[in-house]
Amino acid sequence: MREQFVSYIKNLQDQITAKLEAIDGKATFKEDLWQREEGGGGRTRVIENGNVIEKGGVNISEVHGPLAPAMQQYFKVGDVDFFACGLSLVIHPKNPYAPTVHANWRYFELYDKSGAIVDSWFGGGQDLTPYYLFEQDARHFHKTCKAACDIHNPLFYPKYKVRCDAYFYNPHREEARGVGGLFFDYCKKTPQMQIKDWYNFVTQIGDSFLDAYLPIVEKRKELPYTKAQKDWQEIRRGRYVEFNLVHDKGTLFGLKTNGRIESILMSLPPRVQWRYDHQPDPGSEEEKLINVLKNPIDWV
Amino acid sequence: MREQFVSYIKNLQDQITAKLEAIDGKATFKEDLWQREEGGGGRTRVIENGNVIEKGGVNISEVHGPLAPAMQQYFKVGDVDFFACGLSLVIHPKNPYAPTVHANWRYFELYDKSGAIVDSWFGGGQDLTPYYLFEQDARHFHKTCKAACDIHNPLFYPKYKVRCDAYFYNPHREEARGVGGLFFDYCKKTPQMQIKDWYNFVTQIGDSFLDAYLPIVEKRKELPYTKAQKDWQEIRRGRYVEFNLVHDKGTLFGLKTNGRIESILMSLPPRVQWRYDHQPDPGSEEEKLINVLKNPIDWV
Repeated sequence: MREQFVSYIKNLQDQITAKLEAIDGKATFKEDLWQREEGGGGRTRVIENGNVIEKGGVNISEVHGPLAPAMQQYFKVGDVDFFACGLSLVIHPKNPYAPTVHANWRYFELYDKSGAIVDSWFGGGQDLTPYYLFEQDARHFHKTCKAACDIHNPLFYPKYKVRCDAYFYNPHREEARGVGGLFFDYCKKTPQMQIKDWYNFVTQIGDSFLDAYLPIVEKRKELPYTKAQKDWQEIRRGRYVEFNLVHDKGTLFGLKTNGRIESILMSLPPRVQWRYDHQPDPGSEEEKLINVLKNPIDWV
Repeated sequence: MREQFVSYIKNLQDQITAKLEAIDGKATFKEDLWQREEGGGGRTRVIENGNVIEKGGVNISEVHGPLAPAMQQYFKVGDVDFFACGLSLVIHPKNPYAPTVHANWRYFELYDKSGAIVDSWFGGGQDLTPYYLFEQDARHFHKTCKAACDIHNPLFYPKYKVRCDAYFYNPHREEARGVGGLFFDYCKKTPQMQIKDWYNFVTQIGDSFLDAYLPIVEKRKELPYTKAQKDWQEIRRGRYVEFNLVHDKGTLFGLKTNGRIESILMSLPPRVQWRYDHQPDPGSEEEKLINVLKNPIDWV
């Protein structure tokens, strides 16, 4: 399973970066190969200052070794070894009408000190963060997620959609980070789902990503926009930073367990503004977005 | 003591905002009075888009009520009532040669359910975050801090200077937030220092703030700078955000205990950039700053 999923995410990284470069038409991904002292490493690919993509990263990593004490506590396990691999991506388009997207698909194994597997699971998801709300875009993204889920189990989409809304939430702002998508974790062997079935499910979601996101970018990437709309995008990107640095478990664990900082923080937007007590005008498009972020919608 | 310190911070807020408006010459502070549901409130004053100050806040608050469970855990006390008041300020100048400054002076009391005081202490400090290093500015700031400390105890400056370096540190970047200053907390009654003596000490530091900071701003506010230098300031302000949102205890407790969000997050810089793996040129002024942040200096 390790080799199979590593091979999958390597191929998927190639596919996604190739398609994103094609849609951008100007910038290309810069690749950094890195090694982790305690075992494993990664292939970070970052794109900046494109025609379409202002900043984005599509990273894979494959790390292993003794599980750090902070992670032992978190997983409620003892002194075990681990293997983890996954693909993480965040794309921040230039055009404020084109939404930011985040996705992650990952696989974990835990071993006792004799090297026998004691646990394994998949996790991941994908979610959309618009700056202006096009309901058809949110519906398209969610429908694509649902279609991929439904192939495996009709209960998955409603379950993982709700978890996504709950997870990508800024309690201190009382609003969601975006319009959601899917979020699942600890997808372990059950009587109904072997680990191989979870592999099939997670790779189905991974395969759906470009269909879920690219048509939205195609539609929005050349819409004309004003300086004020770009400012709004940068202000909203401040909320993205607040979520990632205050609440996101992956980011915080990465920072606290000696992860590769530049690969973890590639998720942070290129330009951000914080203005004191900024409020959108009543009845504006900006306010319309906030209302949806405060009250998650059933998009399909 | 409560009344005395509240009255002190009210006056100090007036003094500081008046002097900052005078040095800015264009923008004025916007005042927001707010109330806290559970008891108390505050007077937030924020300035934006000035000639000299790009964004800044000088806030006082005076809050009381039952101590939140998260704070009970943090202070290692049971179900007690509390009173807390303080002045917090952060000033982000426009000119990248003028440093950001942060200061905070605060007083806490804890009470048992009969209303009797069971504990009380002062805390606070002030620290400087330059984007370009002028050694004379760092020395001036530290000398002013030391002179205020020395009036009370010659051991205070070395002790609180080292604590400041330790506290305002981004471990994930292996660098200090800035060139430091003073940081002290839990300044409680001892055989040598009555609570009144701590009041005298903390107000001495508060009184030294304008002398420590304003002459630096005066010297740097009109130096010509390039777009690249402004970009560097915005990139470094990303590190300021990383510290405040990932590590700063005051910010995190505020966000998690239903504080007034806009008053807490006034500390965030107006404009920030994150570029992937940005490294200053070898031998540049930018690299000179980083070297000092990685190896704190004894400035006096």
